[in-house]
Amino acid sequence: MTLIECIPNFSEGRRPEVVDEITRAVAGVADVSLLDVQSDATHNRSVVTFVGHEGPIAEAAYRAIRTAAELIDLNEHEGAHPRFGATDVCPFVPLRAEEMAACIETAGRLAQRVASELAIPVFLYEDAARVPEHRNLAVIRGKGFEEMREVIGSEPAKTPDEGEARVHATAGAVAIGARFPLIAFNVNLDTDDLALAQRIAVEIREKDGGLRCVKAIGLRLDDGAAQVSMNLTDYRVTSPADVVAAIAARAADAGVSIRESEVVGLLPQDVLVRLAHSELHATAFTRDQVLEARVLDTLL
Amino acid sequence: MTLIECIPNFSEGRRPEVVDEITRAVAGVADVSLLDVQSDATHNRSVVTFVGHEGPIAEAAYRAIRTAAELIDLNEHEGAHPRFGATDVCPFVPLRAEEMAACIETAGRLAQRVASELAIPVFLYEDAARVPEHRNLAVIRGKGFEEMREVIGSEPAKTPDEGEARVHATAGAVAIGARFPLIAFNVNLDTDDLALAQRIAVEIREKDGGLRCVKAIGLRLDDGAAQVSMNLTDYRVTSPADVVAAIAARAADAGVSIRESEVVGLLPQDVLVRLAHSELHATAFTRDQVLEARVLDTLL
Repeated sequence: MTLIECIPNFSEGRRPEVVDEITRAVAGVADVSLLDVQSDATHNRSVVTFVGHEGPIAEAAYRAIRTAAELIDLNEHEGAHPRFGATDVCPFVPLRAEEMAACIETAGRLAQRVASELAIPVFLYEDAARVPEHRNLAVIRGKGFEEMREVIGSEPAKTPDEGEARVHATAGAVAIGARFPLIAFNVNLDTDDLALAQRIAVEIREKDGGLRCVKAIGLRLDDGAAQVSMNLTDYRVTSPADVVAAIAARAADAGVSIRESEVVGLLPQDVLVRLAHSELHATAFTRDQVLEARVLDTLL
Repeated sequence: MTLIECIPNFSEGRRPEVVDEITRAVAGVADVSLLDVQSDATHNRSVVTFVGHEGPIAEAAYRAIRTAAELIDLNEHEGAHPRFGATDVCPFVPLRAEEMAACIETAGRLAQRVASELAIPVFLYEDAARVPEHRNLAVIRGKGFEEMREVIGSEPAKTPDEGEARVHATAGAVAIGARFPLIAFNVNLDTDDLALAQRIAVEIREKDGGLRCVKAIGLRLDDGAAQVSMNLTDYRVTSPADVVAAIAARAADAGVSIRESEVVGLLPQDVLVRLAHSELHATAFTRDQVLEARVLDTLL
């Protein structure tokens, strides 16, 4: 069973009726579960989260992109967030590590359809990138719609993977991608020693030579506790259990223990299955042994 | 969302057409997921596993019990397993600890319906028991149908909770219950020292003064490894992580490490959520933060 999460971002966060139309288009596809909708007026942007199998998820994403193209005119859009499309980005995220290939394939097929049926140029980014210049979304998008209108096709980073090198007059362009789920994970220390949290953050984060796929900063919470706040960009490489162990050891050296940790938002069940591997030594344990996963299989 | 597992046992394991009729009755109820069917010819008994919410699960269980009563005649049944009903036992198992109350209520309502509509006397057992004599299924059932026919109503243990004190002429009686899920969990040691596994099993099991809700024996596997084989009867009281820690400490004293552990069969996701609490210190983490659980909520 291939279950894929899709989290498109639309350049509309002020007109609820437009966001409603988009989410209705998603919810209208059978076997797609709409999980979340968040609109931000300052950014004038909305993020929609839905989950489904390859076929339904691609259909739902297509209908959302088509609806956004019909209702959003970038020439009239302003907001704090950089954007170059009515649907600005549309990433597919695997719920299990081995499903990345299906996400990349889904992104590629959707790109072709959006370009040919909606005449919107598509850039394939991150794991779905076909050229190295397209891996980084920020490099593709640059300063957004107004710039892209001028420079599209001028260099590899600005040349779409599907469709003509010409932005859609009102819907701009769209970045469709595949990426690994990011886990927002914080560890709160049983101390108010901010310097300790900051030192541990520096020691464990990748950019300072620490653990791979870990971004970390030290903070102090309102209740006074020092916190190591992290983004884990690939839990297969460095898991929540790995960072807990690394932080616990460093804190213990300073005579401090972990007060508690927190998962911010959602995570795939795969993270928990891997926790059974590492913490229980249950190396052959699979998601098919989780009762709820089996129920899900019978329903989807 | 209250998701309940139902695992009725039927006194038929040799006529596949009868088992098929029973599972068809279950599968015919909308929003019930049929997960497993296992028939054993020696025991002449079948175990059916399905999952759903309170209403659908009770309806599916009722239809299965009715179908079994129509097709199975205990006067013609023989098999190695003790039994006193066409449907012999029908336990409801909560997928989350806090849902036990819903299981008990479901068992009680189903008992009333089975007694009044099918004229089959019902005993409510384990957590659904209304009298202490009915907690233990083995005590209620005794030597089975032929004995129960004679002694029903003669003492509290043999007096049904719903229906007349008279067995159904062909379908006998049925034990409907609510119980906590049992986890079959084995830890394999990196040694062929059977005596060590047996000693650890004795030390950690409840009946010899060890950890509560743990049954354990020491075995040697075909590949030579010594194994501590366990049933965890309440993972809230003693979790897989607890027994791994207890076994690892005792093995380490003998210079032995854990090779791997194994979960036999299925377990509720709740076990994994609690693993995040204990191993990651993520004390506020809930199943609602698991993506797949959220998808399940939108489908059921």
